Amino acid sequence: MSVLIVGTTALDSIKTPTAENPRLLGGSASHAAVAASFFAPVKLVGVVGEDFPGKYITLYRRHKIDLAGLQTLPGKTFHWSGEYESNMNNRRTLATELGVIETFLPTLPKAYQSVPFVLLGNIAPALQNHVLNQMTRPRFVVADSMDLWLNIALPDLLKLLKRLDGFVLNDSEAHQLTKTDNVFSALKKIHALGPKYVIIKKGSHGSILSGPKGFFICPAYPLTKVIDPTGAGDSFVGGLMGYLAAAKGPIDANIRRAMVYGSVVASFCCEGFGVNRTTKIRHSDIEKRVKELENLTRF
Amino acid sequence: MSVLIVGTTALDSIKTPTAENPRLLGGSASHAAVAASFFAPVKLVGVVGEDFPGKYITLYRRHKIDLAGLQTLPGKTFHWSGEYESNMNNRRTLATELGVIETFLPTLPKAYQSVPFVLLGNIAPALQNHVLNQMTRPRFVVADSMDLWLNIALPDLLKLLKRLDGFVLNDSEAHQLTKTDNVFSALKKIHALGPKYVIIKKGSHGSILSGPKGFFICPAYPLTKVIDPTGAGDSFVGGLMGYLAAAKGPIDANIRRAMVYGSVVASFCCEGFGVNRTTKIRHSDIEKRVKELENLTRF
Repeated sequence: MSVLIVGTTALDSIKTPTAENPRLLGGSASHAAVAASFFAPVKLVGVVGEDFPGKYITLYRRHKIDLAGLQTLPGKTFHWSGEYESNMNNRRTLATELGVIETFLPTLPKAYQSVPFVLLGNIAPALQNHVLNQMTRPRFVVADSMDLWLNIALPDLLKLLKRLDGFVLNDSEAHQLTKTDNVFSALKKIHALGPKYVIIKKGSHGSILSGPKGFFICPAYPLTKVIDPTGAGDSFVGGLMGYLAAAKGPIDANIRRAMVYGSVVASFCCEGFGVNRTTKIRHSDIEKRVKELENLTRF
Repeated sequence: MSVLIVGTTALDSIKTPTAENPRLLGGSASHAAVAASFFAPVKLVGVVGEDFPGKYITLYRRHKIDLAGLQTLPGKTFHWSGEYESNMNNRRTLATELGVIETFLPTLPKAYQSVPFVLLGNIAPALQNHVLNQMTRPRFVVADSMDLWLNIALPDLLKLLKRLDGFVLNDSEAHQLTKTDNVFSALKKIHALGPKYVIIKKGSHGSILSGPKGFFICPAYPLTKVIDPTGAGDSFVGGLMGYLAAAKGPIDANIRRAMVYGSVVASFCCEGFGVNRTTKIRHSDIEKRVKELENLTRF
């Protein structure tokens, strides 16, 4: 089955202690779409400006991503620029130029409206709600978010949470949302806001699922070298949703493995700038790391 | 087989946002010995002052801990006092009174010198070396440490590392020791300093083993409420060594499960002040949580 993915489609300029890369393909929807494309057909919803390089359209196409929902508007593509410290965890934003995303209103092509798996990637919760309004009974809806929306659009986000099957956020956002330091208490409080499945991402410490079958502790793949972690969280949830859309059987039977596959795709994302490494993944690379994670956690 | 455990035997006064408990039984050796006692006979090496409460001797005895190596010296027992912030991770030391530990020189009774499993719990590395000097070919020697010794006794610690089978430290100490932010790179660098097995503790994020059979990602047991995390790391390594001492077969066949058992004992430690909860563990409680961790990590 297909996955509909909405989110930002951006150009990222990224500085690390050892390199600098301007105008990479970035944004939550780009990372998630490339990640999901290894498992299931993807329909993208996003917006770019007239400056969006044709090579990135070619890249999407190479991943067989349906671009009927990608609008091109007069103006500039959303541009984010950031710098990482040497530990590759702390980053600071150097510049955010919203461009065409400022006036973006996602309108779904007819063929998108009945897609069963929906990933509302990180973008304003009002737009995530707007996408859901156009869907006819999707089977499984998951949203990702970020601290910004907790700060400036909490009412929209709370409205969205009631409409979700799953919600993905990182540990600091979970603490902020629930005013709880303990991650397992935070998970319980987030369920009370709506979603049946809650996943807390902890970067190199892996992730935790809380769902109808209890908790699942999902490992991160051991990386000795991180080149650029931008988009790792989006790749994780993209891989997860792609895997779920392709899997047979109930969500509960597949979601743990889906997280592991997401985790593996995210590990590749960290090994290159932007989607440079992710786009080069072969299926055998993924299967090898999934197998390794199985061995790394068995006792 | 037996485990010899050396370390501090202390009185801890602990403040948390909700409670205050003076003069609890504490110290690396106390926590580790109680933890190990659930699996194997323990021989304790330590020192207390004349003020050491008789009830704590009774407590050691209840756990069948051999106290032939516990010296009582004129003066006061080592006393540590600390306060936790509401997240229960950040703590600050309010007072450290060394007392009798200042002049402590561990001397092993004859019966201790041939014990096969040796846990050099957190104490000055010079004393850890001094204990090893008295041992006749132990089968498996593991040491724990703390940031203090990295700062003030690094040469002693480096000398010790060459004599160990296993070394246990937390993630911030690993970063400090290796000048590496990446935990997997740090593990490799620590192997180069001597130990064949290196375990990095990450608190509520679990722990990671690096050994001849590669990495093992060990989960922490999910706790929604932490009462007092003091001694959790000592309980982890105590449980680990107790399990190994009791297990049949080669270290490599048992060390992953040993970590999981250590992790479970540490989880109980966090659920009470000092050793209050740990001393009340039943074997069925441990087995139940080990089984749960198996389910929580399977995919």
